[in-house]
Amino acid sequence: PSKMYSKAKLDVWTMFNRAAAQANAVNLGQGFMSFPPDKLVIDSAIEAVSDETAAQYAPPQGRPQLLEQLAEHYGPLVGRKLDSKTQVMVSSGANEGIFCALLAFLELGGTDEAIVIEPAFDQYKPNIIMAGGTPVFVPLRVQSDKDPTREIISSNEWKLDMAELESKITSRTKILILNTPQNPTGKVFDLQELEQVAAIAKKHNLLVISDEVYENLYYDDNKHISIASLPGMFERTVICGSVGKLLGVTGWRVGWLVGPQHLITPCVAAHTRTTFVTCTPIQDATALAFKKAYANDYFNIQRSEYLARRQKLMAAFDSVQLPYSVPHGSYFLLVNAARVRIPDDFVIPDYVSERGHSFELCYFFTVKIGISCIPPTEFYSNENLHLAENYVRFAFCKTDDVFEETARRLQAIK
Amino acid sequence: PSKMYSKAKLDVWTMFNRAAAQANAVNLGQGFMSFPPDKLVIDSAIEAVSDETAAQYAPPQGRPQLLEQLAEHYGPLVGRKLDSKTQVMVSSGANEGIFCALLAFLELGGTDEAIVIEPAFDQYKPNIIMAGGTPVFVPLRVQSDKDPTREIISSNEWKLDMAELESKITSRTKILILNTPQNPTGKVFDLQELEQVAAIAKKHNLLVISDEVYENLYYDDNKHISIASLPGMFERTVICGSVGKLLGVTGWRVGWLVGPQHLITPCVAAHTRTTFVTCTPIQDATALAFKKAYANDYFNIQRSEYLARRQKLMAAFDSVQLPYSVPHGSYFLLVNAARVRIPDDFVIPDYVSERGHSFELCYFFTVKIGISCIPPTEFYSNENLHLAENYVRFAFCKTDDVFEETARRLQAIK
Ligand SMILES: CSCCC(=O)C(=O)O
Ligand SMILES: CSCCC(=O)C(=O)O
Repeated sequence: PSKMYSKAKLDVWTMFNRAAAQANAVNLGQGFMSFPPDKLVIDSAIEAVSDETAAQYAPPQGRPQLLEQLAEHYGPLVGRKLDSKTQVMVSSGANEGIFCALLAFLELGGTDEAIVIEPAFDQYKPNIIMAGGTPVFVPLRVQSDKDPTREIISSNEWKLDMAELESKITSRTKILILNTPQNPTGKVFDLQELEQVAAIAKKHNLLVISDEVYENLYYDDNKHISIASLPGMFERTVICGSVGKLLGVTGWRVGWLVGPQHLITPCVAAHTRTTFVTCTPIQDATALAFKKAYANDYFNIQRSEYLARRQKLMAAFDSVQLPYSVPHGSYFLLVNAARVRIPDDFVIPDYVSERGHSFELCYFFTVKIGISCIPPTEFYSNENLHLAENYVRFAFCKTDDVFEETARRLQAIK
Repeated sequence: PSKMYSKAKLDVWTMFNRAAAQANAVNLGQGFMSFPPDKLVIDSAIEAVSDETAAQYAPPQGRPQLLEQLAEHYGPLVGRKLDSKTQVMVSSGANEGIFCALLAFLELGGTDEAIVIEPAFDQYKPNIIMAGGTPVFVPLRVQSDKDPTREIISSNEWKLDMAELESKITSRTKILILNTPQNPTGKVFDLQELEQVAAIAKKHNLLVISDEVYENLYYDDNKHISIASLPGMFERTVICGSVGKLLGVTGWRVGWLVGPQHLITPCVAAHTRTTFVTCTPIQDATALAFKKAYANDYFNIQRSEYLARRQKLMAAFDSVQLPYSVPHGSYFLLVNAARVRIPDDFVIPDYVSERGHSFELCYFFTVKIGISCIPPTEFYSNENLHLAENYVRFAFCKTDDVFEETARRLQAIK
């Protein structure tokens, strides 16, 4: 096998899902919902698959009814009327959508650079390399008067140093990947930050891939803003979205890209070479469910439900005085576990400990405490790994029984 | 955009699907079924999507119940008991499966070579390049006492010259892609041919990616044989299969790879970086439908139905004395249209004529005759394009009304 995959370590999702199952842990690791999708979602799927005329290839760009639904959905977010025929495409999950955008705009050969803001979803880096580019990393840095190992901070104290960002841009930089609301910090980039990023993107003629899959999950006053809505940015931005997060069906694998025609056309061409087309009946199910979701005020209800989930998970950590960043968006809680001591007699297998302290902490939480989580070091390049060794990520797209059991089991580390 | 996608021409499937719709042509172009899936297939889909516990991420390797079903299905084909835990993976369509195998075994940088036997499904070449490799082409050559522009030949008169194949192998050749039953010739490689290919693969230590998506569609005595069943070949072969062809649902986008653990493991790692996982409910639908298909003798019935379809399409061309290769497998008929004269006053747009005579012929058939088809030159590299300029491909995964209308419209070229 090629170097990239012969050396491929077990992916972190499989590693901790397996460990969780073996240890009978409550699973707050991977961001899948522990609750069923809304009835309107399942009903839409049944209706869609029952249509025997919807079992053959869709057009590569996507089923027209879904493209129309998406154009309507994203119009308000970007502040303009969108053309479903040219400004939207459907992908086989958001991940494949981002990969298509990278394929479409990076030249093979390793000379094109793409900027990644860390911590960053673990797929960006390999996808950049697979598309022929070179990833360049800029970390968010905690800027706070508080001591994050002892005190609760807010996710927007994870700051992007704009001078540091600009210092990483070279004549070979083509792309900046932005993720807001962010996984795993929960940071929601505010208007001022987005304006600064936009100014840099325009000054250096960068394409922005804006991963907004958690678009509907923001809390308190931290409303999600798409960078594509800023002056002059629509023309240089590809927004990425996902049904998995919006409708609570991470297993459906339908995502999409939204942007100007000159950016979407090459993405569709790339998509024809990866998966060619996306599952027809599940595209139809998504379109049907979107319609019903609007009719039922689903998205507002969803947001308030997730706010309640966030509060329950934070309360569990409050009860043992483990500090975290209050997530302004997404469904992840980043806990600072500097204070957690792993007992000397707790045996950690080599395949875990060789991946650093954050992996050890997660293994300890999963196997000993019985609460599975994800090491955010997986979201960092080697150069910035040290920034995350004390952190542990917990997902809160889960149900009350899970939060209650989490709170109970956490007492063991008091 | 990158060179590959800025220059990307409109894909041939969209081009001729659009032209067919505009011209109100009967569509024998893209290989989608013009008939609904069997009731057992739709019932399985309804059952699968109704299960609200099946809406979240599957494991990257695939849902266990589908992996087990596939291990059972392919055991007899490769002549050994297969382990569903290590020797099978699910992909997001067969295409993505082949792409994963190429990603897994070609090194980035363009120095690894992969052999492609032409005509070849139009995705192999770009997928090899995207995975970092260099495609090397060996054409099938018609070896016949007959004149294929005037007489019917059989698809196994498209011969692979083994000396020519071996002459293309260098120290950098890593992979050979084989496709049997073949798209678009309908050739089914016979045992002797497979033994010769196997000997070359073993001598030069090649990995074989065996695209067997048309495995169940072979006619007369031309039984499909997997090269993986030959002595010493299982260890160096990755078989690719697809639900789209086996169950008549090209829009479902579930495919798979079957092979030894040391080959499947890196393919799963690659898959986690392309689409990460494949649609959970549609994997479950596939597993359920497979079970029902066996119980209902579906696969044998399907094969005899396709034989009847082949006969009807061949009869239509017989009636206007247009010669073809009798396809021993797959659902494509390659017609030699050397004899068809496009009238001087028939206007062909530049975007068609610039792609050669086979495109012109297909455009003529689609727009003027009202029967849409696909130019097999799309299945050739530039160096071998001349071998296919007179050929036109018609799909016969279609219904009687389509064949009747085809026969009627064909009379115009008598
Ligand atoms: C690869 S898992 C997809 C993203 C997610 O749900 C997570 O970060 O947990
Ligand atoms: C890209 S279309 C998939 C294959 C097929 O059906 C065809 O060759 O027509």
